[in-house]
Amino acid sequence: MTMTAATESTEKPELTDEVSAPTVDPTELESGVRSYSRGWPTVFTHAKGSVLTAEDGREYIDFFAGAGTLNYGHNHPELKKVVIDHYLEDRVVHGLDMFTDVRREFLQTFNEKILKPRGLDYKVAFPGPGGTNAVEAALKLARKVTGRESVVNFTNGFHGMTLGALSVTGNSMKRGGAGIPLVHSTPMPFDDYFGQVVPDFMYFERLLTDDGSGLNKPAAVIVEAVQGEGGINAARAEWLRGLADLCKKHEILLIVDDIQMGCGRTGEFFSFEQAGIEPDMVTLSKSISGYGHPLALTLIKPELDIWEPGEHNGTFRGFGPAFATATKAIDLFWSDDEFEKATIAKGAYVESRFNRIAAKYPEHELIVKGRGLARGLQMPTGEIAGKIAARSFEEGLLVETSGPSDEVVKLLPALTIPDELLERGLDIIEAAVDEALTA
Amino acid sequence: MTMTAATESTEKPELTDEVSAPTVDPTELESGVRSYSRGWPTVFTHAKGSVLTAEDGREYIDFFAGAGTLNYGHNHPELKKVVIDHYLEDRVVHGLDMFTDVRREFLQTFNEKILKPRGLDYKVAFPGPGGTNAVEAALKLARKVTGRESVVNFTNGFHGMTLGALSVTGNSMKRGGAGIPLVHSTPMPFDDYFGQVVPDFMYFERLLTDDGSGLNKPAAVIVEAVQGEGGINAARAEWLRGLADLCKKHEILLIVDDIQMGCGRTGEFFSFEQAGIEPDMVTLSKSISGYGHPLALTLIKPELDIWEPGEHNGTFRGFGPAFATATKAIDLFWSDDEFEKATIAKGAYVESRFNRIAAKYPEHELIVKGRGLARGLQMPTGEIAGKIAARSFEEGLLVETSGPSDEVVKLLPALTIPDELLERGLDIIEAAVDEALTA
Amino acid sequence: MTMTAATESTEKPELTDEVSAPTVDPTELESGVRSYSRGWPTVFTHAKGSVLTAEDGREYIDFFAGAGTLNYGHNHPELKKVVIDHYLEDRVVHGLDMFTDVRREFLQTFNEKILKPRGLDYKVAFPGPGGTNAVEAALKLARKVTGRESVVNFTNGFHGMTLGALSVTGNSMKRGGAGIPLVHSTPMPFDDYFGQVVPDFMYFERLLTDDGSGLNKPAAVIVEAVQGEGGINAARAEWLRGLADLCKKHEILLIVDDIQMGCGRTGEFFSFEQAGIEPDMVTLSKSISGYGHPLALTLIKPELDIWEPGEHNGTFRGFGPAFATATKAIDLFWSDDEFEKATIAKGAYVESRFNRIAAKYPEHELIVKGRGLARGLQMPTGEIAGKIAARSFEEGLLVETSGPSDEVVKLLPALTIPDELLERGLDIIEAAVDEALTA
Amino acid sequence: MTMTAATESTEKPELTDEVSAPTVDPTELESGVRSYSRGWPTVFTHAKGSVLTAEDGREYIDFFAGAGTLNYGHNHPELKKVVIDHYLEDRVVHGLDMFTDVRREFLQTFNEKILKPRGLDYKVAFPGPGGTNAVEAALKLARKVTGRESVVNFTNGFHGMTLGALSVTGNSMKRGGAGIPLVHSTPMPFDDYFGQVVPDFMYFERLLTDDGSGLNKPAAVIVEAVQGEGGINAARAEWLRGLADLCKKHEILLIVDDIQMGCGRTGEFFSFEQAGIEPDMVTLSKSISGYGHPLALTLIKPELDIWEPGEHNGTFRGFGPAFATATKAIDLFWSDDEFEKATIAKGAYVESRFNRIAAKYPEHELIVKGRGLARGLQMPTGEIAGKIAARSFEEGLLVETSGPSDEVVKLLPALTIPDELLERGLDIIEAAVDEALTA
Repeated sequence: MTMTAATESTEKPELTDEVSAPTVDPTELESGVRSYSRGWPTVFTHAKGSVLTAEDGREYIDFFAGAGTLNYGHNHPELKKVVIDHYLEDRVVHGLDMFTDVRREFLQTFNEKILKPRGLDYKVAFPGPGGTNAVEAALKLARKVTGRESVVNFTNGFHGMTLGALSVTGNSMKRGGAGIPLVHSTPMPFDDYFGQVVPDFMYFERLLTDDGSGLNKPAAVIVEAVQGEGGINAARAEWLRGLADLCKKHEILLIVDDIQMGCGRTGEFFSFEQAGIEPDMVTLSKSISGYGHPLALTLIKPELDIWEPGEHNGTFRGFGPAFATATKAIDLFWSDDEFEKATIAKGAYVESRFNRIAAKYPEHELIVKGRGLARGLQMPTGEIAGKIAARSFEEGLLVETSGPSDEVVKLLPALTIPDELLERGLDIIEAAVDEALTA
Repeated sequence: MTMTAATESTEKPELTDEVSAPTVDPTELESGVRSYSRGWPTVFTHAKGSVLTAEDGREYIDFFAGAGTLNYGHNHPELKKVVIDHYLEDRVVHGLDMFTDVRREFLQTFNEKILKPRGLDYKVAFPGPGGTNAVEAALKLARKVTGRESVVNFTNGFHGMTLGALSVTGNSMKRGGAGIPLVHSTPMPFDDYFGQVVPDFMYFERLLTDDGSGLNKPAAVIVEAVQGEGGINAARAEWLRGLADLCKKHEILLIVDDIQMGCGRTGEFFSFEQAGIEPDMVTLSKSISGYGHPLALTLIKPELDIWEPGEHNGTFRGFGPAFATATKAIDLFWSDDEFEKATIAKGAYVESRFNRIAAKYPEHELIVKGRGLARGLQMPTGEIAGKIAARSFEEGLLVETSGPSDEVVKLLPALTIPDELLERGLDIIEAAVDEALTA
Repeated sequence: MTMTAATESTEKPELTDEVSAPTVDPTELESGVRSYSRGWPTVFTHAKGSVLTAEDGREYIDFFAGAGTLNYGHNHPELKKVVIDHYLEDRVVHGLDMFTDVRREFLQTFNEKILKPRGLDYKVAFPGPGGTNAVEAALKLARKVTGRESVVNFTNGFHGMTLGALSVTGNSMKRGGAGIPLVHSTPMPFDDYFGQVVPDFMYFERLLTDDGSGLNKPAAVIVEAVQGEGGINAARAEWLRGLADLCKKHEILLIVDDIQMGCGRTGEFFSFEQAGIEPDMVTLSKSISGYGHPLALTLIKPELDIWEPGEHNGTFRGFGPAFATATKAIDLFWSDDEFEKATIAKGAYVESRFNRIAAKYPEHELIVKGRGLARGLQMPTGEIAGKIAARSFEEGLLVETSGPSDEVVKLLPALTIPDELLERGLDIIEAAVDEALTA
Repeated sequence: MTMTAATESTEKPELTDEVSAPTVDPTELESGVRSYSRGWPTVFTHAKGSVLTAEDGREYIDFFAGAGTLNYGHNHPELKKVVIDHYLEDRVVHGLDMFTDVRREFLQTFNEKILKPRGLDYKVAFPGPGGTNAVEAALKLARKVTGRESVVNFTNGFHGMTLGALSVTGNSMKRGGAGIPLVHSTPMPFDDYFGQVVPDFMYFERLLTDDGSGLNKPAAVIVEAVQGEGGINAARAEWLRGLADLCKKHEILLIVDDIQMGCGRTGEFFSFEQAGIEPDMVTLSKSISGYGHPLALTLIKPELDIWEPGEHNGTFRGFGPAFATATKAIDLFWSDDEFEKATIAKGAYVESRFNRIAAKYPEHELIVKGRGLARGLQMPTGEIAGKIAARSFEEGLLVETSGPSDEVVKLLPALTIPDELLERGLDIIEAAVDEALTA
C-alpha cells in the first residue's frame, strides 16, 4: 500500500487562522433573504447571560434570546463546562440515531425529571435538528395513524418553513414563498379571535358535525398554547381544554407545538400544563438543548408510535453536545419548582410595567399580551412598533416585533435574566414608547 | 423591584449530575422509528479520527463517517481547538441570521478559497441546520423564480425527509411515510438506468419538446452527481453536462444536491467540478462544518436571489461553532490540492480492492460502483449485503448498505482515514464477502 | 372503387325492434351506484306535465321535476312541437361549437329576453352538456383570470361530481368518492349557519384582512342563492349583497351557481335578481333547455372572457334540440312577468300549507324553508323524512329528501303544475307527515 | 285555493316564434373560447348522412362526424323514426337514474348484442352525459378500489376537460387552462413514441419494479387504443397486450378510453377487441347513442363495482331519446358483422389513397396513420395541415387536424358514408395537399 495521503495525523503546511480583511461588504456574500441583520446592523462577537457584545465593543441587553432558544441565557457557565468537557474528552459529537451514552442520559433525565413528575407518557423521537423537522414528523405520523390527509391549524399560528410545516403556518408572505399552493390545511380561529363574541369552537365544531360542511375530516389539529410569531397571543386554559375535548370527541389528534413556548417560557415546563391537557404529540426544540445547540423532539403517545424503523430520519439527530447540555439544563433548572416560580414572578413584573405604559396612553389602546416571560405590548401600528424596536437597538436593547402586521413589541428575554437588566431593558422600551407616541 | 428570582448567577440547590442507573432499556424511551441503533446494537461513547469506541471498550473502524458528515473524521484535533476556544471565549453560539464575526469569516473564506478558485459566483443562503432545509429552500426559490410548480427528480435520488424534499426522493417506503400523496415531481431515469441501451435524456427531452406529452414544464431538476442513498451511482461527466445543456436549452433551473457528495467526498470539493458545469443552485450540508456541527448552505446564482427578507427563515441558521469549524476546515484542507489528490488515491485503492473481490466471484456479478471515496460493492441481493454489514460489525467495522433493495455495501470512510485503517476495514469486508458468498 | 359496404342507404336485413323479454333483473346490469331507482322501485314509461306513468299503469304526481330540470313539466306540448319539427326537418342535432341557426337564435333570444331586460351583460360559454361542466369552466376561468388557485365554497353547497366541482361541494360521502384529497377549497358558513348569532361574514372577512390568517387568498367564491341539495336553504337578499360587496372589496370573483335554482325556480329567472347583485359568472343548466335536453351555460362578464380558442371544450356543446326548446321556452314563459308571478303565488301556497303542518306539531320544531317553488319542510330526523317520502311514493307522489342528513322533504314541482295537482300532492305529504309524527 | 297561475294548460298570450333579425354579429354573444366556428366560418342549418348544409345553401361533405360522435351519420332515418316516436308518445325524456323501459331495453340490448357475444362481463354505470363524466367516474372508482391516488396516462392522450380527466390529458395548452397544478398523474410513452428504439414499457416497468424509482404506484393506467386528438396514433395489438399484462402483474387497473374510438370506429365495436384484452373499465360516449344524443357509459368489471348508491351521480344520466336511439343503433348495425367488415373496407380504401398521396411526396415524409375509419395523414408542419383543412373547407369538405402541433389531417367520416362521397372528399384532400406541397 503506497498511497501518500493526508490523514488526520498529517501536518498541513502553513495553515493560517487569518482571513484577509473584509474588503467587500461581507453581507453581500449572503442571500438577500437574511433579515435580523437588517434590523440590528452590527457584528456581534461575544455573548454571556443576557448581554451580547458587538465588534465595536457596544453591549446589548438581550430581550430576544435567540428567538426563544436561549431560555437559560448565552453561554451559561455550568452548561459551558459540560460542553467543553464533551469536546475535550473526544466524546461522540455526531451520531445520527446510533445509540450513545449522552443520548441515553438525556432520554432518562427527560423521562424522570420532566415527563414522569407531570404524569406524562411519551415516546421520544429525534426528528432532525430543528423545530420544523419536529413539526414535519408529527404531521407525517398523524396522517399515517389516522389515514387522513387534512390538518387544522389556527389563525396566526407559526410552525416552520419546510413545506409540511409551512402549510400549517398563517403568515401570507411566508406562505407565498412556497411557490406551490399550500393545501391539506384549514385555518380555524385561535382563542379570542373575535373578542369573545362567539362561543369557543362554534365554527369548528359545527363543521365537524355537519356531514355537508365540506371540511375534510382532519387527521390532527396543531396549536401553540401561546402564539409567539403570531403576536404573543396566549390561549386561555379553558380554550385549550375545550380544544382537547373536541379533538377527543371527534378522534382527531391534538399536536401542541411547544417549540418556542416550551422549556419554561411560560413558567411551567410545557406551556399546556396549566390547562391540564395531554396532547397526543408535542413538538420541542429551541431551548431544549439549553445552549443554542440544534436539537428537536417529537413526543408521541406510545400507542401512536407506529412508525417503521427509518420511515422518518435525517442527518443531525444525534448531536452529542446538545444531548449533554440538554441533560444538564434539566438537572439545573427543573429539579424543583423554583425556576418556574421565578419565571412567573419576572413575567408578572413585565406585565405590571406594560400595564403602566398602556395606562399612560389610553387613547392608543395599547394591549398587554402574553403569559410567563412571553410578553407583548401591542402598538397601534406595525410602523410604531418598528420605531420602538429600532430606538431600543440604538439604546442598547435587542427586542423584536411580531404579529400579523409586526405591531407587537415582543419580549422573550432569557428566563435567567437578572432583575436589574430586565428593569433596565424595560426602561429603554418605555422611553422608546414615550418618544414614539408623543412625537 | 422585589422579585426573588433564579438568575444565571443564582446557585440552584442540590443539583446533581448523576442520572439514576438505567433500570429500563433506554431504547424503550425512544420512538420505534430509530434505525442505526438496530443494526449496530451497542452504546458508543467516544470517537477520534476513524475510530469509534463503545461503552464496553470495543473499538470500531468507521467506514460510515456519520453518513458522510465527518469527511475530516471525528473530533479532528485542530478543529477541536477552534471549538473549545469558541466556547471558552464566550463567543456567540446561537445567532439566527444576526451578523457575527464567525459568520463573516466563514463567508469570506468560503468565497475566497472555495468559490473564487473554481470560478463560481454564488450568493450563500443559510436555510436551516440540515440538508433537507437546504433542499426545501432551493425548491421554493426555483418555483418562485420560474413561476412553475413541477420539479424533475431522478430515479433513486435522495434529498430529505421534510415534505418538499421528500417529494423529490425516490425511496417508496420513505415516500409512503408522508401520509399524503407526494405530487409536483416526476422521476426521470438517472444515468445508466437502462445500461446505456437508450441515448441519454431521450425520454426527458422528448417530453419537454412535445406539447402533448402531459409533462408539466418543470421549474427545476434536482440531481446528485453521485447518488449515495440510491446505491452509490456515479453519473458520468458527459451525462451531467448533457443535463446541464438540456436545462439551459429549456430554461429549467439545475439544482445539484451536494449534501453528501460535496466537501471533497469525490475528491474535488464539489462533486460536479469534473463535469465542468455550473449549477443554478447547489445544496451543501453534512461535512461543510467539518465536525458534525449542524450547518447547511443553499448556493444561489446571484441573478436568482430574488427573495424578500425573511421569506425563508428558521431558528438554527447561525450556529457559531459550526461557522468556526467550517472556516478552519476550509483553511486546513482546501488551501491547496493535496487533500483532493489524497482522496482520489484512497478511492483508487478501494476500487482496486473491490475489483479484486468482484473478480473472485464472477458468477455473482458483483458491481463495483462510485467515485472518490464514495464507493459501493453491489451484491446479488439486499440480504447478502445485510449479512456482510452485520458480520463486519461483529468484526469491528461500521459499514452501511444502500440502494433500492439495500443491496450495495456502501463505503463513506472519513477522507482522512489512515491507510492502515482503510486496509484493515477492507480486509474485514473481504472476509465477510467470502463468508457470505461461499456459505 | 369496388367496396361493398353498408352505407346509410343500405337496407340491413331482418332488423327487429323487439328486445327479448327480461329474464334477468335488468337492474343487475347496472352499477350499484344507481340511487333514485332504489327509492322509487318501478319502471316509468310515460310522462306529461306533472304526471309520470309507470309500466304497471300507475300514475305519479311529480314534485321532483327531474331534480329541477323540468321547470316547465314533462313533454310540454309547445316545446314538443319544436323538437319534433327539428328532427323531421333534419336540422343539425349534433354540432359541437360549429355555428348553427338554432345556436344563434338561442343566443339572441337569451340576450334579448333574459339578459338585456335585467340589465345584465354576459358572454355565453357552452362548457359541455351538464351543470358540472359549467362549474368546472367557471372555476378554471376564475383561476386563470386571477392567477390564484383557491376557491371559497359554502357549507352544504353542491356543485357537481367531477373533480373540480366536487372539491367545492360539501357532502362528505360524495367527497369521499373522489379517492384523492380534495384541495384548493375552504368552506365558509352559508347564511344563517349559526342562527344569526354572529354577524354575516365575520369569519370570512377577518380571514381575508388578517395577513396571518393562513387562508390562501381565493380566486373566487361559488355560491347558490338557494341551496337545493343542501336542504333548501335560502340565503337572504342582504346576505347575498354582503357577499357581493365583500368579493368586490377584496377583488375576489363571485360565481353564482344557478343550475338548480335558476330558470324561474325562485320566481324570478335568476335566483339572485331580488338581491340586486351582478355576479362575475353564473352557471346555468338543468331547466335552461326546458325539456330535459342536456345543455349548460357559463355566463361570463365580458372583461373576464380571456380564454384562448379551444382552451376549454367538449363534445356535447351544441345539441340542436336543446337550443330549439331553450329558445322556445324563453319565448313562452319569459316574454312577460306572468310566469314569475304565478310561481311566486304557488310558492306562497306551498309555504302556507307547510306552515299549517308545522303548526300542528310544535313539539317537533318542523322548519319551513325555501323560496319560490323551491320549498322544504325540515323534519326532526332523516329517518322521518325518509318515511314521509316512501309513504308518498306509495300514495302516488314523487318527492325527494335533501339536507346533510336527508332530513328535509324537498319540493321542486314543475313551475307549471296545475293548482289541483299541487294541492293533491300536498295532501299526500300532510297525511304522510301525520302518520310519521303520530305513529 | 285561489291562485291565478300559469300552468301547462294555460294559454300564454301573444307568443312568437320570431327572433328579431341579427343586428349584432351573433358570435359576439358567445365566449371567445369557441373554436370550430372559427375554422368553418358559416352557419349550418341541416344535416343528413354525411352532408351538412349551411344557411347559404352550400353543402359540405362531412369527414368529421361531430368529432366521432356520428358514426352512423347525421339524422339516420331509422334512428330518427325512433326519436320522433319517443317524443310523440310522451315517453320519459328526462329520468336521471330512475328506471325506465328505454333504460332497460338499452341495458339488455347492450348486454345481449355487444357484451355477451364478445365474452365481456361488465356492470354499466351512467356517469353523466358526456365522455369526461365517464372518465371522471372511472378514475374515482379506480382510486376507491385500490386506495391509491396516482394514475398513469400516455403521451398525447386526451380524456376530457374537467379537472380529473384533464389531469390525465397531454395537451399543454388545455392543461394550462386548469389554473391549478395538475397532479396525481405521470405520463408514460405511448406505443412507438421512440420509433421502436426501445423495448415496450422498458421505462414504465423499470419504475414499477424499482422501489427507489420515485413513481407513486398507480391506481390505474388510462389509455386509448387509437389516440384521436393526439394525432391518430394507433397502438399495436401486441403493445396493448403488453400493457394489459403489465397492469395485471402489478395489480394496476387498466382503463381503456373508447369514447372516440369505440362504437365501430376502428371496425370492431370496441377498439381493443383485436388485441384480445379485457380492460378493467371501459369508457364509452360520443357515438354510443348513435344520433348525437348525450350519453356516456363507464363499464366496470363486476368485482370492482363497489360504489355506494349515489356516491357518483349527475343530472343528465337518463336521457330517454338517447337510450332509444342507442338501442336501435345496436340492433341496426351490430346484429351481425357486416358493418364491421364494411368499415374495415372503407378504412383500407382511405389508407390506399393516403399511401398514394404520400408516395407522390417522398421528400416531405408524409406519414399515413390509423386504423379502421380513424385515419390520419401527417404533414411536415401544423401550418401545412391547417392550409389543407382550410382549402378543403373552401371546396366543400369538413376535415379536422389533430396531433401535438395540429400537423395531422384527421379523418373521422361517418362509418356509413357512401363510397362516392368518401371518394369525392379524398379527391378534395389530395388536391389540397398537392396545392400545399407544390406551392
